[in-house]
Amino acid sequence: MKGELFILSSPAGGGKTTIASLLIKEIPKLKRVITCTTRKPRPGEKDGVDYYFLSVDEFERRIRENRFLEYAVVHGNYYGTPKDEVEEELSKGYDLLLVIDVQGMRQIKKARPETVTIFLLPPSLDELVRRMEHRGDPPEEIEKRLQTAKKEIPAWREYDYTVINDILERAKEDVKYIILSNRLKTERFNPEKIKDNSLRELMGI
Amino acid sequence: MKGELFILSSPAGGGKTTIASLLIKEIPKLKRVITCTTRKPRPGEKDGVDYYFLSVDEFERRIRENRFLEYAVVHGNYYGTPKDEVEEELSKGYDLLLVIDVQGMRQIKKARPETVTIFLLPPSLDELVRRMEHRGDPPEEIEKRLQTAKKEIPAWREYDYTVINDILERAKEDVKYIILSNRLKTERFNPEKIKDNSLRELMGI
Repeated sequence: MKGELFILSSPAGGGKTTIASLLIKEIPKLKRVITCTTRKPRPGEKDGVDYYFLSVDEFERRIRENRFLEYAVVHGNYYGTPKDEVEEELSKGYDLLLVIDVQGMRQIKKARPETVTIFLLPPSLDELVRRMEHRGDPPEEIEKRLQTAKKEIPAWREYDYTVINDILERAKEDVKYIILSNRLKTERFNPEKIKDNSLRELMGI
Repeated sequence: MKGELFILSSPAGGGKTTIASLLIKEIPKLKRVITCTTRKPRPGEKDGVDYYFLSVDEFERRIRENRFLEYAVVHGNYYGTPKDEVEEELSKGYDLLLVIDVQGMRQIKKARPETVTIFLLPPSLDELVRRMEHRGDPPEEIEKRLQTAKKEIPAWREYDYTVINDILERAKEDVKYIILSNRLKTERFNPEKIKDNSLRELMGI
């Protein structure tokens, strides 16, 4: 049984990274897609864990080799989703959680319409700024990210699901419901779950 | 914001009534649709709670008045879903849980394709019989219901979701995820949830 790809987007400070990390720990058979970037690591970020940190040369080589599901330039840095890794994990039956921006979502949704897309909304713009300040983003970055947020938020209607991240635990549970309910879709039913032969026969599996 | 109609089906002894009762208590703004029947109440069943118990004359009068969303004859008794009540509660914003059989599901899904349908599977046929015995169904009824189950189970593929009722608590949670995640769909987003005016403006709500 193939897994599904879930896209989680939110403005900077919207909580997408935190929620993704919590869910990966909590939900079995869910993996995060590690994306590639040419931006410098922030303090504490690790290569192969937070991102694959690539040089501009290496990134551009992979673009030419058509090895990205989507890629874009944001604030002067490349960001991209590695194609082979995603297809491989999905075919192994893993669900995948991909944290990307609106541009990335649009490219992937076009190529894979079955992708489930989730937009995380902050309760207010003030709260968004407060969270960026709290995590120590430099003031000039905050202003830049707030402007990006203002461009991205109007895209919320293009997403399949909209979750308000007011209380973190609540928002995390909401995203969890979306992922777990998707596994219960009849087209994703795993015949191995039924051991009883007379029932299997009736079900035609 | 309009609510959604959820259909829960399973063979007799599959656990649909138990799970429905638990979810009604647990999930806010979820109501059970009380259906009408002409069969006699079982011990403990109450009119207006478990079913509306109607006489054959009254049921047939309502059929003529087109007051059922669907109706059918099962084991010589009428069963039907009252139309006005469903539409009224949905438009008030309640989600509705309707416990009906495969025939009923088909009629309603045809009339309302957006209806979310869930099939509860027993882990095995033996377990199904065991549960009917446990709740005290008379042996001749058990045999009749088992034959019906064998006709109904092959219809599992027509449902949107398939949930295995092996462990009751687990199956109940699964159905809960389906109902709660549906509320997070962007087309069901409730603008009243956002109080911040600058955010409302950006969202276009």
